[in-house]
Amino acid sequence: MSLLVVGTVAFDAIETPFGKRDKIIGGSATYIGLSASYFYKKIKLVSVVGSDFPKATIAQFNKKGINTDGIEVIKGKKSFFWSGRYHMDMNTRDTLVTDLNVLADFNPVLPAASRKPDFLMLGNIEPSLQIKVIEQLKTRPQLIAMDTMNFWMDIARPNLDKVLTMVDLLIINDEEARQLTGEYSLVKAAKKIMKTGPKTLVVKKGEHGALLFQGDQVFFAPALPLEEVFDPTGAGDTFAGGFMGYLAKTKNISFTNMKRAIIYGSAMASFCVEKFGPERLLDLKPSQVAERVKTFVQLTKFNIK
Amino acid sequence: MSLLVVGTVAFDAIETPFGKRDKIIGGSATYIGLSASYFYKKIKLVSVVGSDFPKATIAQFNKKGINTDGIEVIKGKKSFFWSGRYHMDMNTRDTLVTDLNVLADFNPVLPAASRKPDFLMLGNIEPSLQIKVIEQLKTRPQLIAMDTMNFWMDIARPNLDKVLTMVDLLIINDEEARQLTGEYSLVKAAKKIMKTGPKTLVVKKGEHGALLFQGDQVFFAPALPLEEVFDPTGAGDTFAGGFMGYLAKTKNISFTNMKRAIIYGSAMASFCVEKFGPERLLDLKPSQVAERVKTFVQLTKFNIK
Repeated sequence: MSLLVVGTVAFDAIETPFGKRDKIIGGSATYIGLSASYFYKKIKLVSVVGSDFPKATIAQFNKKGINTDGIEVIKGKKSFFWSGRYHMDMNTRDTLVTDLNVLADFNPVLPAASRKPDFLMLGNIEPSLQIKVIEQLKTRPQLIAMDTMNFWMDIARPNLDKVLTMVDLLIINDEEARQLTGEYSLVKAAKKIMKTGPKTLVVKKGEHGALLFQGDQVFFAPALPLEEVFDPTGAGDTFAGGFMGYLAKTKNISFTNMKRAIIYGSAMASFCVEKFGPERLLDLKPSQVAERVKTFVQLTKFNIK
Repeated sequence: MSLLVVGTVAFDAIETPFGKRDKIIGGSATYIGLSASYFYKKIKLVSVVGSDFPKATIAQFNKKGINTDGIEVIKGKKSFFWSGRYHMDMNTRDTLVTDLNVLADFNPVLPAASRKPDFLMLGNIEPSLQIKVIEQLKTRPQLIAMDTMNFWMDIARPNLDKVLTMVDLLIINDEEARQLTGEYSLVKAAKKIMKTGPKTLVVKKGEHGALLFQGDQVFFAPALPLEEVFDPTGAGDTFAGGFMGYLAKTKNISFTNMKRAIIYGSAMASFCVEKFGPERLLDLKPSQVAERVKTFVQLTKFNIK
């Protein structure tokens, strides 16, 4: 049994109205893996880093139950680096620097022991690489989920369309769903996506929550209304990690269980934004996650007589 | 027993990407009254119109259980007229024309029989007029709710601050809550508002749902994800009308019941946007409202094991 996570492990520099960090650990696979590890301990991470990447961080991953045999270390090269600055509303940001470094030649090779995962989460990387990962699988996982972004819709649409037919579930944000389909209505966008690709769709709306679509079924989970959003970096990946971690733990991909998974993912994301980068995910206790999920129940519960 | 509604009854001209209407019935009190009438039949409406306002519409109101003795008709003058054009995303609009006409001299006088309402909903009018209405009451209603808008925050802040101390509940949208308090976080904004004014706050977020705040309690209701939003005009007032109509019907202002009222309000708003202006509210059947509320239950229901 395992959850395979493919994505970036990187350095970020982040500036928000609340402060800045010049060099912290980032990357989609980092957030997905750390978040999933609160629910499930058989996580295998596939990524690439340079020789500048700290061994202590790899050790931290391992301690959380994340197997890092699939993280390739390229000697003499630098890890992927992203730098961004958030605006006052924390919903918009400017990318200041994107240094691909080792990511430019990323060619994900799954270790032999990672080719039969039960769950696969493809973080936001080039669609051709997502295809390569799926093609290396020896057995079909119970669920293949993927993320992507507008950039790939602009420059790699044919491969993106292809990988969409190979996965079970797509997790993207509202603007990406609109760009992918040309439909403003998320209901219409969801129908289009589910017709040509994944049977299940999760649309992340940031501070406005998330929608889960499958056939004619729709579920909505709010984001937790917060006093302070300290740093939104990684919140979407943390959400995806919590979602996939919970599914992998429960081994149940029914719509009813996916609804629960969305709530757990939302709870994890609500922690992520409380501190810089993945800091909050590192010191979080499972009892705090359980407590936060109760807050979601309180927030949404009503009964119609 | 009665629900008193004070606000505008007017003409609108509306242009959306789906079509246009040159002259249809509009106004906050129109939407609030029609929406509330699905739950409660002892509604008294206080407003002002010109002699151009159709008697057939007044008759339509009466048929819905809305008493119109408090609608003053000013002879030889024209009714309030608003004209707007929605952008493609339906979330932003340009106001093309605002002809105050009779509204310029509106001085709401409550008929003697309307001075002891059990529930009072003050639609978005000048704060000094909202104060005048409250001062005419002979007994304190079970609940006084009010709406307002950014315009009054800019030009009538002292009176707005005063009326806020006189009401129990404020219903505004997210941008208004932010402008009123200078806080971007809606949680912080809500705390500030509840400290200096109403004990309960409803923040409408349009297509992103609505939040209900009271003390330390928070409830969130989503908006129904829709394939088509035909015309958003009046959706906020329709929401408020459903909310107040349900409370008046059940005579229960507990937080638990307000949560139900928010769902009923959201259901009514989801109908309103399906057609131009208040058209959809006129042909709606109570069974359709009940059916729509079930959709909200489906949309939000989850159980954590």
